[in-house]
Amino acid sequence: MRNFEFLSPTKIIFGKNTHEQVGEVIRSYGYKKVLIHYGKGHIKRTGLYDNIVESLGQAGIQTAELGGVQPNPVLSTVRKGIELGRKENVDFILAVGGGSVIDSSKAIGMGIPYKGDVWDFYTDKTPAKTVPIGVILTIAAAGSETSKNTVITNEDGLIKRGAAFECNRPVFAIMNPELTYTLPPYQTACGVVDIMAHVMERYFSAERNVELTDRLCEGVLKTCISNAQTVMNEPENYNARAEIMFAGSLAHNGYLGLGRTEEWVSHRMGHEITAFYGATHGETLSVMFPAWMKYIYKHDTALFAKFFNRVFDVEYDFFEPENTVLRGIAKLESFYTSLGLKVRLRDLNVDENQFSEMAKKANARGKLGNIVKLDDDDLVRIYEIAY
Amino acid sequence: MRNFEFLSPTKIIFGKNTHEQVGEVIRSYGYKKVLIHYGKGHIKRTGLYDNIVESLGQAGIQTAELGGVQPNPVLSTVRKGIELGRKENVDFILAVGGGSVIDSSKAIGMGIPYKGDVWDFYTDKTPAKTVPIGVILTIAAAGSETSKNTVITNEDGLIKRGAAFECNRPVFAIMNPELTYTLPPYQTACGVVDIMAHVMERYFSAERNVELTDRLCEGVLKTCISNAQTVMNEPENYNARAEIMFAGSLAHNGYLGLGRTEEWVSHRMGHEITAFYGATHGETLSVMFPAWMKYIYKHDTALFAKFFNRVFDVEYDFFEPENTVLRGIAKLESFYTSLGLKVRLRDLNVDENQFSEMAKKANARGKLGNIVKLDDDDLVRIYEIAY
Repeated sequence: MRNFEFLSPTKIIFGKNTHEQVGEVIRSYGYKKVLIHYGKGHIKRTGLYDNIVESLGQAGIQTAELGGVQPNPVLSTVRKGIELGRKENVDFILAVGGGSVIDSSKAIGMGIPYKGDVWDFYTDKTPAKTVPIGVILTIAAAGSETSKNTVITNEDGLIKRGAAFECNRPVFAIMNPELTYTLPPYQTACGVVDIMAHVMERYFSAERNVELTDRLCEGVLKTCISNAQTVMNEPENYNARAEIMFAGSLAHNGYLGLGRTEEWVSHRMGHEITAFYGATHGETLSVMFPAWMKYIYKHDTALFAKFFNRVFDVEYDFFEPENTVLRGIAKLESFYTSLGLKVRLRDLNVDENQFSEMAKKANARGKLGNIVKLDDDDLVRIYEIAY
Repeated sequence: MRNFEFLSPTKIIFGKNTHEQVGEVIRSYGYKKVLIHYGKGHIKRTGLYDNIVESLGQAGIQTAELGGVQPNPVLSTVRKGIELGRKENVDFILAVGGGSVIDSSKAIGMGIPYKGDVWDFYTDKTPAKTVPIGVILTIAAAGSETSKNTVITNEDGLIKRGAAFECNRPVFAIMNPELTYTLPPYQTACGVVDIMAHVMERYFSAERNVELTDRLCEGVLKTCISNAQTVMNEPENYNARAEIMFAGSLAHNGYLGLGRTEEWVSHRMGHEITAFYGATHGETLSVMFPAWMKYIYKHDTALFAKFFNRVFDVEYDFFEPENTVLRGIAKLESFYTSLGLKVRLRDLNVDENQFSEMAKKANARGKLGNIVKLDDDDLVRIYEIAY
């Protein structure tokens, strides 16, 4: 086990009707003026927006607002938010939505007090101070509600890039599983896949002596698998939605990676598919993870066999362990397709001729991979397998 | 799943040599004068005390100190600490030790700024403010390093009582598994049993729809079981010591109980054995847990069968599920005895004639039990089974 430090300062407020407390919660921290940041207006149609405005009003909190965040949030919206936040002199940002809205809020929070360009934080700078954020979560997927991460797409150059700073962890995360009832099946499926991918990127570690976190990862993954069909078939099943939402937060708050190396190749390669073609994040993962596994597993067959035996209940083949892996990858693909997601790049209308360019961009900040370092050529080969 | 709130504000600093950072860490929070609180001098013999004093000195932090904390920490030592802390005007308490030292430190931290008697916080009062504490952990067991709990014994009346306040969570916990190398086998075994008991008290919940935390509990327990013999046989095995230390913290920081009801009957009944006879906490649990299970399991055979099948790998008997439980309890007792611990009250030299008095005291603050409420007579019966 490697040395580590960990602090998760986000207060989790979980359960039915918890969003109605938001005004009281923000007042308890002493904030006065809040920028409400949200997506394309779904929260207005469901009545959630009205509930929030009412709660904030009752607590005597002033508001400004900026909607319009799109999936794979873009820098131009972030810049609008920074401008508005400064003009309105907000001291807090309330993200109402999923990962895109939260990531956009984190970017705005970093940008408001900063004299330079906020994109600096996605290239090489560390923020000295930020406007803090809180979350009302409506999509279980990205885990951004308790994570230090934010991913933004710079439209100028199709660059999708992540940043991770402790100061970006939200002050609180209000998580009411009922708010995810109206999430369409495709987004629900992509969310489950994203949550599981956050765990898998940590599970496939080059560090061997990490039993506790191995087993925690396995538990989160098995919980996702056993509740996935239920949230697809019964979107208003509270308990299943609650398990997935709870799992989504633990999957990406950093705890499951403690003492380990992490992988993140499938995520980074998937980001390029999104940057080039606007593909939904979760579906880039259902395509990339099996392809990555097929290319990589021989470097650590035991680890992949353990994964598929423990998580996907593939019987271990003691004489030909590799068979455990191959059956497992097939089972993983079946699981993804059972959720209605694609597992091949060709089905996402991706152009083979771009693989070389995508590989180059994915490797631009240093070679990907921990189990084994991957050259651009390796990444092209993985894209080809995924095709 | 029940609604819940959760915040774990303790910064975990985990790994080799991390204790050498303690001066820097305390300085980073701005504290100036620290009360070093510890046990019976073991840390002086190992050189740890000197390392700490050196690190604090290099960081320019002033110190006062109070050693002498005994297992099952007593109120009289807490009162000494409060007096000393006031006289020396300390603004921080550094607990160097295991659960007893940390619990005593939490009590001192509550007592210093309080005008009344610190025992009030163990009966009915809530602290308005506290002197914050940090921890250098030397025993993996109580989980007090990241918990809100403190248990103190009032010598006047042999009352061992717990209190739980969010403000008692340590600011940081430095966890270097190497510091547990010198822990004798008996304390090591008691620690493992205590850690597992903290998880089991949460696992046996009356709430059914708690899959994620069920699986996390199972993972922590399996990690303890698989490393228990190693830490007994190879006290300087870093990886095994690290797994147990990491598990001890997660076992009791509250996360595993989120959304659940909890049980705590075995703990409370064990506290009375300690209060009456000075028995070691861990060994009261190896005695009480099997007895409690034997008396209770018929109220929820499915839950106990699931526990023994998933955690102790007892094959599930589909036609007679009860057999799974009975074989499981026998396996649990064998596990405890394999660690050198007793599983019968008679072997702890407990007097049968005190059962009625002990039961009355254990139930004094409301009837114990969530799976089923237990009268004093039920508790006597459980003590009898344990005898």
